[in-house]
Amino acid sequence: MTRAFNFAAGPATLPLEVLQQAQAEMLEWQGTGCSVMEVSHRGKQFEACNAEAEQDLRDLLAIPSNYKVLFLQGGASMQWAQFLFNLCGSNPNGDYILTGEWTNRAVAEARKLLPLWGGSVNIVASSEDRNYSYIPDEGSWKRRKDANFLHICSNETIQGLEYNFIPEQLGDVTLVADMSSHIVSRPVDVSRYGLIYAGAQKNIGPAGITIVIVRDDLIGKARPDTPRMFDYKLMADNHSLLNTPPTFGIYLAGLVFKWLKRQGGVEAIERKNIAKAELLYGYLDSQDFYYAPVEKGSRSRMNVPFRLKDESLNAKFLAETEAAGLVALKGHKAVGGMRASIYNAMPMEGVQALVAFMRDFAARNG
Amino acid sequence: MTRAFNFAAGPATLPLEVLQQAQAEMLEWQGTGCSVMEVSHRGKQFEACNAEAEQDLRDLLAIPSNYKVLFLQGGASMQWAQFLFNLCGSNPNGDYILTGEWTNRAVAEARKLLPLWGGSVNIVASSEDRNYSYIPDEGSWKRRKDANFLHICSNETIQGLEYNFIPEQLGDVTLVADMSSHIVSRPVDVSRYGLIYAGAQKNIGPAGITIVIVRDDLIGKARPDTPRMFDYKLMADNHSLLNTPPTFGIYLAGLVFKWLKRQGGVEAIERKNIAKAELLYGYLDSQDFYYAPVEKGSRSRMNVPFRLKDESLNAKFLAETEAAGLVALKGHKAVGGMRASIYNAMPMEGVQALVAFMRDFAARNG
Repeated sequence: MTRAFNFAAGPATLPLEVLQQAQAEMLEWQGTGCSVMEVSHRGKQFEACNAEAEQDLRDLLAIPSNYKVLFLQGGASMQWAQFLFNLCGSNPNGDYILTGEWTNRAVAEARKLLPLWGGSVNIVASSEDRNYSYIPDEGSWKRRKDANFLHICSNETIQGLEYNFIPEQLGDVTLVADMSSHIVSRPVDVSRYGLIYAGAQKNIGPAGITIVIVRDDLIGKARPDTPRMFDYKLMADNHSLLNTPPTFGIYLAGLVFKWLKRQGGVEAIERKNIAKAELLYGYLDSQDFYYAPVEKGSRSRMNVPFRLKDESLNAKFLAETEAAGLVALKGHKAVGGMRASIYNAMPMEGVQALVAFMRDFAARNG
Repeated sequence: MTRAFNFAAGPATLPLEVLQQAQAEMLEWQGTGCSVMEVSHRGKQFEACNAEAEQDLRDLLAIPSNYKVLFLQGGASMQWAQFLFNLCGSNPNGDYILTGEWTNRAVAEARKLLPLWGGSVNIVASSEDRNYSYIPDEGSWKRRKDANFLHICSNETIQGLEYNFIPEQLGDVTLVADMSSHIVSRPVDVSRYGLIYAGAQKNIGPAGITIVIVRDDLIGKARPDTPRMFDYKLMADNHSLLNTPPTFGIYLAGLVFKWLKRQGGVEAIERKNIAKAELLYGYLDSQDFYYAPVEKGSRSRMNVPFRLKDESLNAKFLAETEAAGLVALKGHKAVGGMRASIYNAMPMEGVQALVAFMRDFAARNG
């Protein structure tokens, strides 16, 4: 068995200990005589597993008791519509900040639905002018006081941008954040947000679960045409077990949360993530064979796009990294170049190996 | 490791060979240096895995080429709304047949949405009068010629009913079937249906994938307020990879399809399923300590509800079966008594062990 250092943006690398435990329990789980995939979601073992995963996430992020935690399906992409159905019962006006691929897709969904419901979409700020290489300064934002919500993507996976601040509260406007690619990588003041959502397949577990954290006064007011399975209130009342949930995914997310607690929680993992990011960005800024296109102050600790000055070497770089066991470094086609995703489960050794390779590659090809 | 015979209704028992392969590949899959959970859904390995799972399902059910096969999320419960958004672009009138818990829930969703869209729900037939113990005779159905669709659940998991016929075509009315709990347990003439959907967690794989098989002339006509992630056309155009799919679930479903092909396909598995069902129903009808509440001619081969004449023995029966490694026999609370779900992955030996235990229990307690 040869494990690679896997820099994929998601689905992404998982902690080896977690995979080993899942492997050991694959044929029999907790004395049930069955795999965790084979037991009823209504049985006491799985209900306990589900409740424990929720509690561990609450502990890790210090989620206040007036917030519901939901384990849903469909990915962040489903939430682009689902949160609109839930939040826009009376006011279908949404403010959005455009910072790259994911916010553009969220806006596309809102531009489809909100006008049909008598509302509108307002682009508060955009960094399209410089190819989504920065988070627009809050002072320049043109927000609506009577918007229902302000939507941000607090870490743009493809462009490699990350907010280093939380937007100010404006009147009753609900702050909504897509945190898919940096949730549980750092502490977050949940109380500043009305709604947080995140696909699991970066920092939490396998693809197929979506985390929703929502303040309880925002639920129970969904539009009348909301599909039952979309309704946060129904899901919350049923502890995410309104229908059969993705049981294996919840189990695996639970193992990741336990692993994260063993690492010392999100404060400790943040220190490691800072050290990994500093090592990689520090190297990128120290030479001129490669460069990082994202402006300082907006750079993501999780997703690090970089480019070779001589792009004709891209194919060679990718072939040699793969051969060296440093995999999935090709950048997203919307951006080009390279991207190293260095989520919680990427050890410092992986980043060190990448930097050592890059240094050597530059020496041989510079 | 002690594997039980697991009679759970879903999530349900999986083929041991499939779990063993998943276990062996848990840390490294196909030479990628990663688990299948950790690789990109856009990479060539996973795209091939996804395409092969689709092709194997097409082979197993002889799905005509003018049908799309989609791997979605959210379970059958999500489809109750999703298929309405897709099919009811112009005609929001749905006919339903009520045969138990699952059809009642599908109708609840339609009663919520169709009137808001200017349409209505018509109950064509119901077996509520005799506690959902039979499939209503087709001669008694009151269908609408101008309905958009007729919806059936061709196997009611909780009540244990199964259609032994396909409803007649009426004008242009699209036949829609929830086949969650008996898909790939028998051959099916897909061409008689416009839309088939099924949660995976009975006969196909882990919870968290939903199979949709839809005739291609029915897609691309969704309502304007359809969430993008609900749109069968967008999903079909992207081979179910519109966003990150539940990769591990698709992989595991693919392993189950391969296993099913090794068993000889759905014709061969049907013979085994008939033999298992005949053994269990034959025993139930041969004595009077237990009885099967479902009327002959409507009995499911997959889900076999049964009751003890003396219900005061229920707790003892359940405790002793659990101790004997015959697990998850408790009936759904809506029905009571016992239920043995004997899906494809339940070997004949499991049914033989159950019948032997029941015979012995009756002798000791009769």
